[in-house]
Order: sequence, then C-alpha cells, then structure tokens
Amino acid sequence: MADEFDYIRWLRQRIPGDVRVPIGPGDDAAALRLTSGLETLVSTDMLMDGIDFRLAEADPRLVGRKALAVNLSDIAAMAGEPVAAVISVALPITGGRRLGEELFLGMLSLAEEFHTALVGGDTNSWHGPLVLSLTVIGEAARPVTRAGARPGDWLFLTGPVGGSILGRHLRFVPRIREARQLAELTEIHAMIDVSDGVAADLLHLCQESGCGALLRAGSIPLAPEAFEVPSELSPLQHGLFDGEDFELILAVDEGTGQRLVAEQPVPGIKLTHIGECVKSGLWLESEGNRLPLEPRGFVHQLE
Amino acid sequence: MADEFDYIRWLRQRIPGDVRVPIGPGDDAAALRLTSGLETLVSTDMLMDGIDFRLAEADPRLVGRKALAVNLSDIAAMAGEPVAAVISVALPITGGRRLGEELFLGMLSLAEEFHTALVGGDTNSWHGPLVLSLTVIGEAARPVTRAGARPGDWLFLTGPVGGSILGRHLRFVPRIREARQLAELTEIHAMIDVSDGVAADLLHLCQESGCGALLRAGSIPLAPEAFEVPSELSPLQHGLFDGEDFELILAVDEGTGQRLVAEQPVPGIKLTHIGECVKSGLWLESEGNRLPLEPRGFVHQLE
Repeated sequence: MADEFDYIRWLRQRIPGDVRVPIGPGDDAAALRLTSGLETLVSTDMLMDGIDFRLAEADPRLVGRKALAVNLSDIAAMAGEPVAAVISVALPITGGRRLGEELFLGMLSLAEEFHTALVGGDTNSWHGPLVLSLTVIGEAARPVTRAGARPGDWLFLTGPVGGSILGRHLRFVPRIREARQLAELTEIHAMIDVSDGVAADLLHLCQESGCGALLRAGSIPLAPEAFEVPSELSPLQHGLFDGEDFELILAVDEGTGQRLVAEQPVPGIKLTHIGECVKSGLWLESEGNRLPLEPRGFVHQLE
Repeated sequence: MADEFDYIRWLRQRIPGDVRVPIGPGDDAAALRLTSGLETLVSTDMLMDGIDFRLAEADPRLVGRKALAVNLSDIAAMAGEPVAAVISVALPITGGRRLGEELFLGMLSLAEEFHTALVGGDTNSWHGPLVLSLTVIGEAARPVTRAGARPGDWLFLTGPVGGSILGRHLRFVPRIREARQLAELTEIHAMIDVSDGVAADLLHLCQESGCGALLRAGSIPLAPEAFEVPSELSPLQHGLFDGEDFELILAVDEGTGQRLVAEQPVPGIKLTHIGECVKSGLWLESEGNRLPLEPRGFVHQLE
C-alpha cells in the first residue's frame, strides 16, 4: 500500500532541474522565472476516462502523453513557446500507483522533447474513473489569437485530417515548432488548433474574427485514416467533422498565402490552402456548388 | 438542452476586463502581462465530489468558492499575490448547466475580493461526479518556501484550528493579505498552509527544511468547532490532525518571534507561538512530557 506522498517522492526523483524553475515540485506552489517583455500564456485541458481516452484499451503512457500534448497544441495555436506544466490527477485507488507512474513517464518524454518543465501538481485518488487536468504556462512576444481573420484572407491547414480516433489522437505531435516558424516568417492574422473538428474550429475562428469562411472540398488534405474509419460518413466528412486532429488552421492575407503555397517554407509539413475567409457564413464548395457547412462533432452537453 | 459553448458564452459575459489580461477567456490560451522582475507562482488543486465536498449537502457556490480558495491559500503560503486563475471542470450532464453557473458565481465573488482574473478554462460534461481543477498564477518578489526553517526557529500559526469539516473548509478566507504583510514586516524562514492538518503539514515543512519540531499542547489555538465535532478525538487532536484549516504555519528566528508575540503586527489575526524547530523528530510537549507526534489525517491512498 502506498500513498500520494510516496508517489510524489518518486516523481521528484525523476524531474530534472531547470534554470527557469527556482522552485519545482514539492512546495505549496512552483516558482518560474519567465522572460521579461513577453506575454505569459496559460492553457488548461481536462481529460476523462471514457470521454477523451479509454483506459481499458489505451497504453497509459500514451494517455499521459496526450494530456500534455493537447495543452501544448493550445500553446502552438497562439504561436507560443511552452515553459512549464502542472498536473492534477484523480487516480483510481486500485492500480493507481502504477498507473500514475506510467502516465507521468508518458508526459515526461514529451515534456523533454518540447522543453517543458513539469513543476508541480496535485495527486488525488478515488473510486471514480481517471481524470487528468493539466495547465501549461507558455510565452510569446505577440500571441496569435482566433480574432484577426478578415474577408479575403487565405485559410491554411498544417497537415492532413480525419480519422484521428484510430490512434493519431494519442500520438500526434503538437505544432509548436511549425507555428513558431510561421509566426517568424509571416504575419498570421488568426490561428486555432483542430480539437473539435475542422468545421467546428473554423467556425470558432470566424465567430471571434467576425467573418465567414468558404472551404473547397477538393482541397481538404485527408489523412489515410479518414478512409479507414468504419462508419457511414465519407472520408471528406471525417476530415471536416472528426475532432482531435491537432493540426492548425491559420488565416493570412492573400499575398502571404500565395508565397506560402509557392515556397512551403516550414520543414516537415505541407501547408495546404483550403479556402478563404468571406464576409459571413460557413460554406463548402464542392463540384461547383456552394453549400452551407454545418459543423458536427463531439460537444459536451449540459442539461 | 444547452452545451459547453452556451455556457462559455454565459461566462464570458460575466467576466470583467482586466489590464493584466490582454487575452481572456475564449481563445486557445489566455495571455497575461505579469510584473517584470517578480517570480511567477503556479499552484494547482483538484477537488472531487465525495472527497473534498459533498455536492448533495453543500451550496454549489461555496463549492466553487472553495475550489478557488484552496489555490489562493497555496499562493498565500508562498507570500505571493494572485493574478489569474484557469478553471477546468467535469460537470455531471444532468443539472450541469445550472451547477456550472453556481460554481462560477461562487468563484467570481472570491476572485474579485482577491483581485484574481478568471482567464479561461476547459468545460466538460460526463456521467461521473463533479470534478473541479483550478490553477492559479501568482507573483512574488521573494517566494517563501517550506525549506528554510532552522533549529531554534519559533513556529507560529495564523489562526485557530480543528473541526473545519463543520463548515469552515467551505468558507475560510485565504491568508493572502496576512502573509504579504508578514513577509514585508519580517523575514519568514519557511511557511506552509494547513491543508492536511497541523501535524502533517508541519512534518512537510520539517522534511523540506531538514529539521524537526516541538509543539506545545497548551499553545495550539483551537477553533470552537474543535470542541463540537462529534467524534472520539479530543479537541486538541482535532486541532492537530484535522485538515483544511487553511491557516498558515510559519517559522521565524527567535528575535522576530518575540517581536511578533509582543507587537501582533498583522491586523485581523492573532499570531500564536505554538512551538519551536528542533534538530529532528516531531514532538508534542504536554504537561511536562515530551511525546512523539505522529501525523494522522486524510491521505490519498494508491494501491
């Protein structure tokens, strides 16, 4: 029988020191030395067994990895650089110690890859399902919001979409590096990561920007898994409506858009021009027809 | 039937603007403008129905208030000033919208009292029990850790303890102001807030400081509720072992300790001298006898 304090001791032995972290795990709060002059970014995401993953089926290291990755993806969507993360967890009592270790090891490897210090958290146990809640602190000189897109802007996607449920939602690489490179090369008007689905997240971007968007059906880059999901939906529908692709949608002016298409300046990804911003509405152009695009996908319901 | 986005719209209408928050709720991350030259504090706490509160019995506004208050208490324990909070929540689907509103309103009033901007979060629903996870970002020029106490230091408690389960755990005022005043008036060697219990948290402070402590039974300030809890424990045992008092334990040198006793320089609280740091061990002196003090109280178990 072990308890939260044994687990915390185990964690602390495995967390490397970091010059940005004068006070790490084990005190009432962590302390960070952030870069002066930059804005501080804060993003939080909660993941629950049965909703965001199925612990009975998934490798717990990948579950831990995902819990950090979705938060890093939010920092990427602001064109920011992650600095530190705190991790709160409600572990099932039975098997909780081993599960906690596996979750942590999955986080740690991704944290090291993206230079993110794990600086603290809150360890709980209960008879309920696993719940993880992470908060990532990041930095950016000029964060890119969802709110700056204008009619006429070109819309891009950083990679193929659809069918992430077949495994990519646990293994995707947050687009931290790519977003930073893009933000250095060009002025991004607005950006969002695809967590709810291309159509749903594009709608969020349009709502915040006060514009609409037109997507071209033939231009949406589809992942191989969009063709493999057993369902009644078409591959294009999987591309438009599946969530958790964690690619980025971005809006730039037309001239920049033409340059991005011609130069493909970001190593490792293909930037795909998927449509344009318009005055209002969300539209899909398919074989010469322009049809209203209704976002679908998973939404948390409240009664 | 409503969903997470209706709820988020409702929240955004109620969150006041703040010059420290260039990007508030509704984007992929919030952005903060923190004070340059100060260290950034990060604290996180998760609360679960059935463990940290009983939703069937408690006013949901007080539950929301507590979720923020316990995090503010951690910032207080570092002698910091809170700046902003993010809130992740897993709401039960049935009744979730109304519950979410009540939780938020309970947080908002405490947030305003302590000048803490609510800058974002993650709203989820499920068929499980309510889970709340908050992260507070704070600042301090020189954070006070658990690690600086030395043998000979005097130990103080900022208020009476015991029996908080009778209601104080939902209504306590985090000692933000008092800790800041103390830190300005004097050099605090080490500090911790009482969440696990006086004995358990004193042990944490001692472990981090590499020393021991001796408490005097007759000096522990007991709350009226310590005498009222129906149990087989004595009032003193409730004072030593009950959790969630959220008063602060602090260690200062003897000279400072004498001055604090004589001057009581912090308005609104009585600083009580409860014992001293010693070389090793945790001891209780009672009627001339010195007995080993074994912390008891709630600990999250992991199998």
